[in-house]
Amino acid sequence: MTAGVPRITAVDTYDIRFPTSRELDGSDAMNPDPDYSAAYVVLRTDAGDGREGHGFTFTIGRGNDVQVSAIEALRSHVIGRPVDELCADPSSLSSDLSGDSQLRWLGPEKGVMHMAIGAVVNAVWDLAARRAGKPLWQLLADAEPEWLASQVDYRYIADALTPDEALALLKRGRDGAAQRAVRLCATGYPGYTTSPGWLGYSDEKLTRLAGQAVTDGFTQIKLKVGADLQDDIRRCRAARAAVGDGIRIAIDANQRWNVDEAVEWSRALAEFNPYWIEEPTSPDDILGHAAIRQAVAPIKVATGEHVQNRIVFKQLLQAGAIDVLQIDAARVGGVNENLAILLLAAKYGVPVCPHAGGVGLCELVQHLSMFDYVALSGTTDDRVIEYVDHLHEHFVDPVRIVHGHYAAPAAPGFSAQMRQESLDTYRYPGGAFWAADGAAREEKAGA
Amino acid sequence: MTAGVPRITAVDTYDIRFPTSRELDGSDAMNPDPDYSAAYVVLRTDAGDGREGHGFTFTIGRGNDVQVSAIEALRSHVIGRPVDELCADPSSLSSDLSGDSQLRWLGPEKGVMHMAIGAVVNAVWDLAARRAGKPLWQLLADAEPEWLASQVDYRYIADALTPDEALALLKRGRDGAAQRAVRLCATGYPGYTTSPGWLGYSDEKLTRLAGQAVTDGFTQIKLKVGADLQDDIRRCRAARAAVGDGIRIAIDANQRWNVDEAVEWSRALAEFNPYWIEEPTSPDDILGHAAIRQAVAPIKVATGEHVQNRIVFKQLLQAGAIDVLQIDAARVGGVNENLAILLLAAKYGVPVCPHAGGVGLCELVQHLSMFDYVALSGTTDDRVIEYVDHLHEHFVDPVRIVHGHYAAPAAPGFSAQMRQESLDTYRYPGGAFWAADGAAREEKAGA
Repeated sequence: MTAGVPRITAVDTYDIRFPTSRELDGSDAMNPDPDYSAAYVVLRTDAGDGREGHGFTFTIGRGNDVQVSAIEALRSHVIGRPVDELCADPSSLSSDLSGDSQLRWLGPEKGVMHMAIGAVVNAVWDLAARRAGKPLWQLLADAEPEWLASQVDYRYIADALTPDEALALLKRGRDGAAQRAVRLCATGYPGYTTSPGWLGYSDEKLTRLAGQAVTDGFTQIKLKVGADLQDDIRRCRAARAAVGDGIRIAIDANQRWNVDEAVEWSRALAEFNPYWIEEPTSPDDILGHAAIRQAVAPIKVATGEHVQNRIVFKQLLQAGAIDVLQIDAARVGGVNENLAILLLAAKYGVPVCPHAGGVGLCELVQHLSMFDYVALSGTTDDRVIEYVDHLHEHFVDPVRIVHGHYAAPAAPGFSAQMRQESLDTYRYPGGAFWAADGAAREEKAGA
Repeated sequence: MTAGVPRITAVDTYDIRFPTSRELDGSDAMNPDPDYSAAYVVLRTDAGDGREGHGFTFTIGRGNDVQVSAIEALRSHVIGRPVDELCADPSSLSSDLSGDSQLRWLGPEKGVMHMAIGAVVNAVWDLAARRAGKPLWQLLADAEPEWLASQVDYRYIADALTPDEALALLKRGRDGAAQRAVRLCATGYPGYTTSPGWLGYSDEKLTRLAGQAVTDGFTQIKLKVGADLQDDIRRCRAARAAVGDGIRIAIDANQRWNVDEAVEWSRALAEFNPYWIEEPTSPDDILGHAAIRQAVAPIKVATGEHVQNRIVFKQLLQAGAIDVLQIDAARVGGVNENLAILLLAAKYGVPVCPHAGGVGLCELVQHLSMFDYVALSGTTDDRVIEYVDHLHEHFVDPVRIVHGHYAAPAAPGFSAQMRQESLDTYRYPGGAFWAADGAAREEKAGA
């Protein structure tokens, strides 16, 4: 080690859980009672500048501790890294983590270990953007195409995207980037809202929130479907009546169906003109999505929030299985792998409409779409970022929605940092909320 | 709870690691220095009959602790279950574990959480077979087709295999089953050996072990390839010279290549007449395997040890992407999901040649192939179980190889139980071996 060079000195983890199941926020056909949670990580340095890197994996409750232990299993790869080198080349860490031959057995590149890698890699990008004094979208949009292309792992996707093709796409993306950055800062990036459509909400609440969404400037809403067809018909009818014909209604089955069921159910809802059917079946079923897409057109097929890595996205594109690609900021291996996925989508000309909601997913993923608009695809046509109106109050730099658009973040970083008070209150099981909750339960049990 | 009904009372976990990296046993192009390990679980009951259920996930070292924590996250689903009901219907637990809506977010059905489910479900089958007084293969082979068909989760595979089709396959499998069981007990199930072919071995050791394999009665060996083409040519030439033309030589790239590289490399080794190329690329790349298979025929394409679940196997079969399907006993969700995979293979007429080796994988997977032979596919033509000659001494009921064949286990259970002395010695980090190892390292560091 060279003395005096600032290094990563700590990888601190937090098991953060919010009791969302008590309000049925987030309820859908597969997830009736989520407790939105985060396996949260902070990278600290000895640079003396007070800057940290924040990242997290989103989970929905049980197992958040397993996710935390997976992040901790990566610690030895991170501690001691020189901060300048790391921030100048996050792919150096990303490839070391994905390539750890022993940890790789636990995936490879999927599930708990891969999401842990994503949390740590995203924390590095958060730190890099803070040090650069830029919001992440701008750091990416300002970067040299050659450098961005070097941040991608082409292993297992080179048959669909070569490094040369990636570079050409990134160079093309520079044309007009400055003007688009100005436009982005002026008008924001279009969003759509899922807040009206949770399965646990009453028809009255759905109708009221759908109407409110239109008033708020959204041009697309989303409803959860898939538990009961007659309920879905009634809810889609109510939503269509509430928003009129000019607003897009997406529907989301959260993987509830087999291939045949997806086709039948989607057709039964076709009269309400759904814009896309999201997660009609298993995220692993590339050929199944292709079959469904053939059968339900002109309803579009969308998936991605549970797609495990760039290799599956590659095949969804190769097979013509999706109309809409839904990246998630915290499921795959972090910004580096999402760069690969955005490049694949650009190559195949498929619009990216990110999954968001959860804990902090809106905060993160907006940066990726904004970069894509400014310096890769160059368009927001048929592109919208999901928006869900909860838990933003726990973030230091929460998203701002203005007339149905995400306002471009201006603060340096990846908008990933949670407020210290929230960490202290919702840390599980010892944080103030859970300690009080446990005491109340014990009292009730004793009464 | 009904008093007096025996229940599961404990789910005990063990982090077991063997220092295999010091001998380069198990070294391949992606895994240069594995420490073969097991996240081990024991189910205990209050039945008072001394019977336990043993299961495990195989890992290769780092992250074994994460795998243990994942098994522990399942504990609350298992404790308190009535033993009779559980053993009469293991799918009741299997579906509860896979269906836990919060834990499902961490997969779904892949990676760390899914392997944890596999370990627990396999432990239930071990317990069920012990209570039935039969080795698992026999319990399965004796079972009613209707009951076996009820043990399969058809979600996401019903487009390829319906419950009726599964039942028909199982009923067909009963024809001649009694005679095949007799034959199995007399001659065993054919194996092949990977022991000669580890990448870290010298040419001399490779040649010697390959010759020994033929002497021992094996009709197929396997070589690791993929690190350096000239080395592979030299090693394949040496192996072919050692075994002659009448012995099949499989080659195994352990996911080292992109699609194009896999095609080029396989063709460069074609002169040595490799029987199959195993794991030529990512286990997630269904379309990639299909492209490789088209290009390298008549070399067969094999994969499966890292295939995450039945949904990916389904697509490999639908896409005509593989000639040989390699189940693994401890990667997917346990016996129940492997039943689904064996049924899919039978439906598509693709031979199953299990992955084994590691820690205890031979012990487990032999039961599945033997069941398949006796009561499902009804044949061992072009079917062989991988055999690797290490770590069997740690098991209470280790595999027995007789003239290149796996002898049918006779002891009740799934052959999953490790010897108590091995658990005590190799428990990490506090077991006798690791404690002494740590002390030796400290002494060396202090010297």
